[in-house]
Amino acid sequence: MKYGFSDRVRYFDSSAVRDILKVVNQGNVISFAGGLPDEDLFPVEAVKDAFQKAITSGNKALQYAETEGLEALRMHLVERMKRKSIYRNPEDVLVTSGSQQAIDLFSRVMFNPGDVILTEDPTYLAALQVFASYETKVVAVDSDQDGMLKEDLEEKIKLLKPKCIYVVPTYSNPEGKVWSLERRKMLLELAEKYHVVVMEDDPYGDIQFDPEAAPSSLAALDEANQYVVYTSTFSKTVVPAMRIGWIVGPNQIIRLIAQAKQAADLHTNSISQHALVHLLNDFDLDQHVRNITSVYYERMKIMKKALDEIELEGLTYLEPKGGMFFWVNLPKEMNTTDLLKAAVDQGVAFVPGKPFYVGEAEGNTLRLNFTNSTPDKIETGMKRLVHVIQEAYLQVN
Amino acid sequence: MKYGFSDRVRYFDSSAVRDILKVVNQGNVISFAGGLPDEDLFPVEAVKDAFQKAITSGNKALQYAETEGLEALRMHLVERMKRKSIYRNPEDVLVTSGSQQAIDLFSRVMFNPGDVILTEDPTYLAALQVFASYETKVVAVDSDQDGMLKEDLEEKIKLLKPKCIYVVPTYSNPEGKVWSLERRKMLLELAEKYHVVVMEDDPYGDIQFDPEAAPSSLAALDEANQYVVYTSTFSKTVVPAMRIGWIVGPNQIIRLIAQAKQAADLHTNSISQHALVHLLNDFDLDQHVRNITSVYYERMKIMKKALDEIELEGLTYLEPKGGMFFWVNLPKEMNTTDLLKAAVDQGVAFVPGKPFYVGEAEGNTLRLNFTNSTPDKIETGMKRLVHVIQEAYLQVN
Repeated sequence: MKYGFSDRVRYFDSSAVRDILKVVNQGNVISFAGGLPDEDLFPVEAVKDAFQKAITSGNKALQYAETEGLEALRMHLVERMKRKSIYRNPEDVLVTSGSQQAIDLFSRVMFNPGDVILTEDPTYLAALQVFASYETKVVAVDSDQDGMLKEDLEEKIKLLKPKCIYVVPTYSNPEGKVWSLERRKMLLELAEKYHVVVMEDDPYGDIQFDPEAAPSSLAALDEANQYVVYTSTFSKTVVPAMRIGWIVGPNQIIRLIAQAKQAADLHTNSISQHALVHLLNDFDLDQHVRNITSVYYERMKIMKKALDEIELEGLTYLEPKGGMFFWVNLPKEMNTTDLLKAAVDQGVAFVPGKPFYVGEAEGNTLRLNFTNSTPDKIETGMKRLVHVIQEAYLQVN
Repeated sequence: MKYGFSDRVRYFDSSAVRDILKVVNQGNVISFAGGLPDEDLFPVEAVKDAFQKAITSGNKALQYAETEGLEALRMHLVERMKRKSIYRNPEDVLVTSGSQQAIDLFSRVMFNPGDVILTEDPTYLAALQVFASYETKVVAVDSDQDGMLKEDLEEKIKLLKPKCIYVVPTYSNPEGKVWSLERRKMLLELAEKYHVVVMEDDPYGDIQFDPEAAPSSLAALDEANQYVVYTSTFSKTVVPAMRIGWIVGPNQIIRLIAQAKQAADLHTNSISQHALVHLLNDFDLDQHVRNITSVYYERMKIMKKALDEIELEGLTYLEPKGGMFFWVNLPKEMNTTDLLKAAVDQGVAFVPGKPFYVGEAEGNTLRLNFTNSTPDKIETGMKRLVHVIQEAYLQVN
């Protein structure tokens, strides 16, 4: 039988991320492709204790729960955000099934087909997929390593009347960059001037190699809670399998998102929510985050050393100040999509830059993850990758 | 600031279910309003053991997982469905965050604004909310206690060219009724004749008071897996807090739903999925379901006795053969929405029938849940309810 589907399925994409996860699962390939934290660093004992407490704390914990999320968890989130100078009330917070769901539900209440969203270029692949599925028009704003450029941003706001500006300003995916405080203030000023909502996607904010150097989040700068919708997650700091994220912003938006969530899945897994409350009560998560961050920092350094040893005119990258990724520019004439096949044959994987682009892709870019491989594997994998890059370079020159 | 939202938020509804959950949480009200299983019957020890095993079975269980759901869980689902004569492959199955998400994701890949969906009237409230949020047009088909009536169904299919027929044919919510085998076959024949997809929502199928009497599911009748998309859940048989449901159907539809799910929330909580696999391996879930069903059967009988004692011309109900609900018709001149306030004042709650209707609501209907209250509470609550009904009856007569 021939099925009649919705128009939005035309914008679906059997995505790079899915294909990447399949590569990751092949045993003999060293993968720098995914965006995974290292499972060997997971706080398994703390998670086990927390779930045990959640399940034995009374049968109500196993019953249906409120759509907005457990109040005890939202109180914890409010306290944790305070330390980043984000002052919000528990009723402005909604617990989601990972921050991916936050992006989806926000899109559901905000966007009609044809609405314009401004982003950086490149930007988070799976956000682009969500925006595409709502049949929106995503337009890239010119940026440098400090963030979007004011002139182009203001021009595009005036011209295109965007519904939203979506940014990952802190240790971004895929570029690993940090917006300067000046550019953050500039963005907020324009958001206020032209009444545009900003979505600040901050999954990596806690993985910071130099905590002193991290500028205020956009949500902290939006003191009146008027323009910024902020989302983050415990997937990088506790464990991804719990699928717990949250979204916080103007109450009117959060209330509509709660109604959307009720239709979408009633509520987020509440065993995990109860467990997370116990974990935040009993476990020193901040110390744990410092521990894993210092391990990730060492791994970043090892990968950087390998990158620095490649003698190739035109190869550039930005040293990450946090997060999980290197974004590498190879010489202009190289094509990383072609390169991936050769790399996997040689036992190493990465993500070609192409799917992260909104506008015309720069085919010579690639993303490397440094958090999910041990130092040994990073060294071996980078040797393989350097070899593949150098061979390919010789072929095109 | 004035926010610009999507058009679909106009169809959102600060729903009855949400308000009901608030009533449920008021301590001194005996509530027959919710659709909750009894938390005192939850298999807490088995759940605890299962989560313990899931968390300590290797750190991979705490990592990101595949969008389709764990293969081991999908294999279990395939085996369990076989016993209902639903023969499907694991790749035709997708694990969802409860069956609510199955309805939402199915809608996302199927419906454009204005598409027609045929349903019974009344039908499942939260499915209507999902359909409304996709700006579809839901049209009710004339039905009796055996299911939809062929003449009206065929006429509406021919006239309206529906994209889908949505039904809860087994121990339905809210009516607690069971479609006859004859009507099921009739529905399938028309679906085949006119190429219409059928969504069979089956959350209550396992709560059956007379297993011999339960007719084949629609999915079992659709042997070639061409027309029926079937969804069910473990929320009524294990615990709701895990949020584990599934959807199974034609592979082309399921593959698109997987893409939609990736954008929606990447994957379903995988700690819960691993735990469920352990629970299905180690625990006699079928015996547990028989145990809770026999408790629910006794409660249904107690509620039935109380209903039978009301001396009121025009009060009718159907005796449930399974599931969780009585659907009660009061005399025509009574209004159950008005009645609810008086009932809550007297310490008892129910759901007025109105929000379950697609077409013009019958204001004299109400839904009573018998699974979430002990026999004592059912007796006390029903005494209060009978009193409120009789007082209100005197006022309108």
